[in-house]
Amino acid sequence: MNTNIFSQSVKNLAESETLKMAQLARNLREQGIEVIDLSLGEPDFDTPEDIKNMAKKALDEGHTKYTPVNGIPLLRQAIVDKLKRDNGIEYNINNIVVSNGAKQAIANVCLTFLNPGDEVIIFAPYWVSYISIVKFSNGTPIIVDSTIENDFKVIPEELEKAITDKTKLVLFSSPGNPTGSVYTKSELKGLVDVLIKYPDIYIISDEIYEYISFDYDHVSIASFPEIKDRVILINGMSKGFSMTGWRLGYMAADIEIAKACTKIQGQSTSNANSIAQYASVYALNHGKYPEMSNIFKERRDIFVKLMKEIPNIKVNIPQAAFFLLPDFSYYFGKTNGKITIKDDVHLSELFLSEIHIATVSGSAFGSKECVRFSYATSIEQLTQAVVKIKNWLMEFH
Amino acid sequence: MNTNIFSQSVKNLAESETLKMAQLARNLREQGIEVIDLSLGEPDFDTPEDIKNMAKKALDEGHTKYTPVNGIPLLRQAIVDKLKRDNGIEYNINNIVVSNGAKQAIANVCLTFLNPGDEVIIFAPYWVSYISIVKFSNGTPIIVDSTIENDFKVIPEELEKAITDKTKLVLFSSPGNPTGSVYTKSELKGLVDVLIKYPDIYIISDEIYEYISFDYDHVSIASFPEIKDRVILINGMSKGFSMTGWRLGYMAADIEIAKACTKIQGQSTSNANSIAQYASVYALNHGKYPEMSNIFKERRDIFVKLMKEIPNIKVNIPQAAFFLLPDFSYYFGKTNGKITIKDDVHLSELFLSEIHIATVSGSAFGSKECVRFSYATSIEQLTQAVVKIKNWLMEFH
Repeated sequence: MNTNIFSQSVKNLAESETLKMAQLARNLREQGIEVIDLSLGEPDFDTPEDIKNMAKKALDEGHTKYTPVNGIPLLRQAIVDKLKRDNGIEYNINNIVVSNGAKQAIANVCLTFLNPGDEVIIFAPYWVSYISIVKFSNGTPIIVDSTIENDFKVIPEELEKAITDKTKLVLFSSPGNPTGSVYTKSELKGLVDVLIKYPDIYIISDEIYEYISFDYDHVSIASFPEIKDRVILINGMSKGFSMTGWRLGYMAADIEIAKACTKIQGQSTSNANSIAQYASVYALNHGKYPEMSNIFKERRDIFVKLMKEIPNIKVNIPQAAFFLLPDFSYYFGKTNGKITIKDDVHLSELFLSEIHIATVSGSAFGSKECVRFSYATSIEQLTQAVVKIKNWLMEFH
Repeated sequence: MNTNIFSQSVKNLAESETLKMAQLARNLREQGIEVIDLSLGEPDFDTPEDIKNMAKKALDEGHTKYTPVNGIPLLRQAIVDKLKRDNGIEYNINNIVVSNGAKQAIANVCLTFLNPGDEVIIFAPYWVSYISIVKFSNGTPIIVDSTIENDFKVIPEELEKAITDKTKLVLFSSPGNPTGSVYTKSELKGLVDVLIKYPDIYIISDEIYEYISFDYDHVSIASFPEIKDRVILINGMSKGFSMTGWRLGYMAADIEIAKACTKIQGQSTSNANSIAQYASVYALNHGKYPEMSNIFKERRDIFVKLMKEIPNIKVNIPQAAFFLLPDFSYYFGKTNGKITIKDDVHLSELFLSEIHIATVSGSAFGSKECVRFSYATSIEQLTQAVVKIKNWLMEFH
């Protein structure tokens, strides 16, 4: 068919870089080639047994009907209790909207706020989908860069320089994807001190990796009273509870924002899966499963140590999540006689085609010196991968 | 907060009439008043036990991870097989996109096609959400009316009169919500004969009530070969399998449309719940559960018979779904000395406040002579409701 008749907004949507890599890896596997997949964006654990049992109980009890669009009151109360217990922030159930994943929660907020031309400040490196969601909501993404030397954290001066009359939202994640960086309380205070001067700017704080954090306590920017009313806190079940397939995310925000997001969700998808909602009540009351984050911490330690042995790359120590974002820019322009490495996208493609390791180029996340590695896989696979990369890169001069 | 800063599109979104009525009914119940709820849009049965067991099996097997955005291949194959078996239409799995409910499937299609100013022809009476979804996708809804005398079915001449240079989509449901009307094969042929002349117009055919049909076989407009490539067939698990809370819908369409809808869904919510996907494979292979539609048929017969005894209203015989849409316009302007019934919205409010029966005004569906009754409840409740309405209306002259 003639796809020219499609809407401008769908034409503007880029193909996802992560999905493209996943497809290329699948193609290789179908040829019988063994691929080490370090491109994954989800924990490699099953959902904990006790949470699955609560889903079965929900099935037995017949919780198979429509729920309120914004989620069952029981779940919204469990979210309120969690945010009080873990984050020291007071909400009530009317501040909460439960969505089909944190992604939908972010999309709802962008659709609530953005008119054509409105600007959204996004901290780089950023999660792939931020850019697409903002564009799809008619907004203009404004990127604020950070450096690997500063653990990929944006400094207040850079944030302030990016603010204009058109800035409507600031969107960032801590812990970060793809960086694993965690903003400390004093770093957040630096950002708050800037934002306090601009009372019309709202802040989307994506905290989906909160429970996979190794080195210090998670602090939410919503816990600063001077700015709380302007923060839309995003979290969900996918990462901390290894429930990616269940599609259960949520937001906490001013009641007017919550109402607007509920209206949008009511017209686009309605409630999140009812069984997932009941299971999530249990999970949130249970809280963090440290056994999972402990395993990720062990892998982080080993993976970082191994990667640091590769000459001429820059590696920082992520404090959370399950990603490493080393800087390979030394190798751009270098050749092994047959191949010249052009840039990060090319390098990521070469990792796959030459040594069968699936990664994602840093460019996909606004970080063109780097390549993203997920360590949500076994230590054996991680070790094998680093050996292969090291040996292969040593041919390049 | 100042909600003026919200986007124009969220400001344009109307409050849902059905949700408003549900809230009013809840308020009465909280005061201890017993309300007969005939406003519901979902079957009053639990999901069949065997489907729930398959969900438990999926949990046991660890199907708790991200799936492809457009759904697991196993489910898309089950949908292909169902469409061949039940509807005689050939697709392959690349034509299928699985969504968080049929609502999202429709929204994806509208977002794929519509630029500002594009027109979507909608057959009235229509499902509440069609209008909001089209508006939210920047389109302009163009309503084509039908009459109760013609069982609320649009005739080809009326469709053709509504077509303009800006018409991009035609959107209708058969079986219909809120009408319960079913287009026969020859009635669909009449519509096809018009649409064949306009090769740039695409057709969204919402068939979510397919399995709750009493009097004759369901025919999909996609089964006409001369138009199949331009039909986007929408269906899902909610009504036929009593799985409303699971949020599992799907579409079948040209591969380019499927790809575009997958892109949009990938940026807004990603995959539908993984457990629901596995349970749906089983359900679709199983096919219709006639025990449910048989109960609805029995209720329809009794409810229609009872309603016909109310003087001066017009009642047609719906062939499907679980709604009745009687014409109460005779009573508009009539008084019982204290109250004068203004219109359908007022009458629906009076049913609730005066005799504690929750319904939805026909206006919500583009049918301002009517009130919608759902008979997804017990025969006892239905009988009580009709007696109350009859006695109360008899006071009006």
